[in-house]
Amino acid sequence: MKTKKIAVILAGCGVYDGAEIHEATLTLYAISKLGADYEIFAPDINQHHVINHLTGKEMNETRNVLVESARIARGKIKNINELKAEEFDALIFPGGFGVAKNLCDFAFKGPECNVIPSVANVIKKMHSLNKPIGALCISPVMLAKVLGKAELTIGKDQGTASAIEKMGSKHIPVSQGEIAVDKENKIVTSPCYMLDSSIAQIGDGAFNLVKAILEL
Amino acid sequence: MKTKKIAVILAGCGVYDGAEIHEATLTLYAISKLGADYEIFAPDINQHHVINHLTGKEMNETRNVLVESARIARGKIKNINELKAEEFDALIFPGGFGVAKNLCDFAFKGPECNVIPSVANVIKKMHSLNKPIGALCISPVMLAKVLGKAELTIGKDQGTASAIEKMGSKHIPVSQGEIAVDKENKIVTSPCYMLDSSIAQIGDGAFNLVKAILEL
Repeated sequence: MKTKKIAVILAGCGVYDGAEIHEATLTLYAISKLGADYEIFAPDINQHHVINHLTGKEMNETRNVLVESARIARGKIKNINELKAEEFDALIFPGGFGVAKNLCDFAFKGPECNVIPSVANVIKKMHSLNKPIGALCISPVMLAKVLGKAELTIGKDQGTASAIEKMGSKHIPVSQGEIAVDKENKIVTSPCYMLDSSIAQIGDGAFNLVKAILEL
Repeated sequence: MKTKKIAVILAGCGVYDGAEIHEATLTLYAISKLGADYEIFAPDINQHHVINHLTGKEMNETRNVLVESARIARGKIKNINELKAEEFDALIFPGGFGVAKNLCDFAFKGPECNVIPSVANVIKKMHSLNKPIGALCISPVMLAKVLGKAELTIGKDQGTASAIEKMGSKHIPVSQGEIAVDKENKIVTSPCYMLDSSIAQIGDGAFNLVKAILEL
């Protein structure tokens, strides 16, 4: 059987202004451990801002999403504009505030958010090709926005759950390490750090999500 | 039985100028998954330099090791000067060039390197308390420098192996995912990305290392 190839989209490097590092790393680990391959992509745009992760305060700096994501990817990363949906079996978005600040503006506009065109196009293309899409943590809000009707989870946070319902999707509450599977739309989601979790539970969520994606 | 507590030392955030993100994350994951706890520490010093991980070129920026390490730690990190060796059962150093550029200057001086005092003191203190120390990737060079006599592995790289021997330690060649255990000195080492490895093999190395540490 041909090795399955999954495109992973990053939003920077660090939970407060980029991709959540544990979720991103454990997604790559689960893909590799479960016998599939991955390629990593990110948009070549500036981050919304840079947060000092020690103090939580904004820093007077400018960083680029593709350049910082390359830290997680060890340099092996491409501009999301080069992603050809036909070449991949599935698409996965790890979470982190960077998703809600860089890939879309959900952190600021909630259900009125916009998803940046390069990301929205990839989601639409993969969905139209009937290929599975996985989303961790806060990333499901982008799928709600772009695809409208879907069954998604972000854990149990009421505000985010109701925003997802406002965008036309149905929210499924789940606990740490669990996933929600929307078989019709081939969408698998897991709350990860949207719930107070240990890193072991993040790994469980990532493994369950990647397993479900490979089965779809 | 009391939950074992391991101190993990980071050297920044990114393979080329800081802590290797996969090694750091998978070490934390292995500790959590194997039922132990961790606290994360880093020195409050500027990085030697900042590398653009997309191009490999140096950037005209200054970043702080503690602040950038906080990205991997999700903000839960302390200055290494606050580390009390008595409170921990073991010490682990993930790898990355940051170890050889920020925690010591092995990248520039080889066997003539100096380990920064805050890190050297923690290694000496843990060793004198007869507590196990784990080191991934390039980190074993610091143990060779500080402790002198030990049995260590950095995989198969001839240059680094001979530098380790020059510093008075013995090098044990091992393959991907494997570890070297020095029972007398309670030191466990694993080559990780010092060898061409998949992220699944990095996870194997981290799990084998943490398991051996918890058994010592």
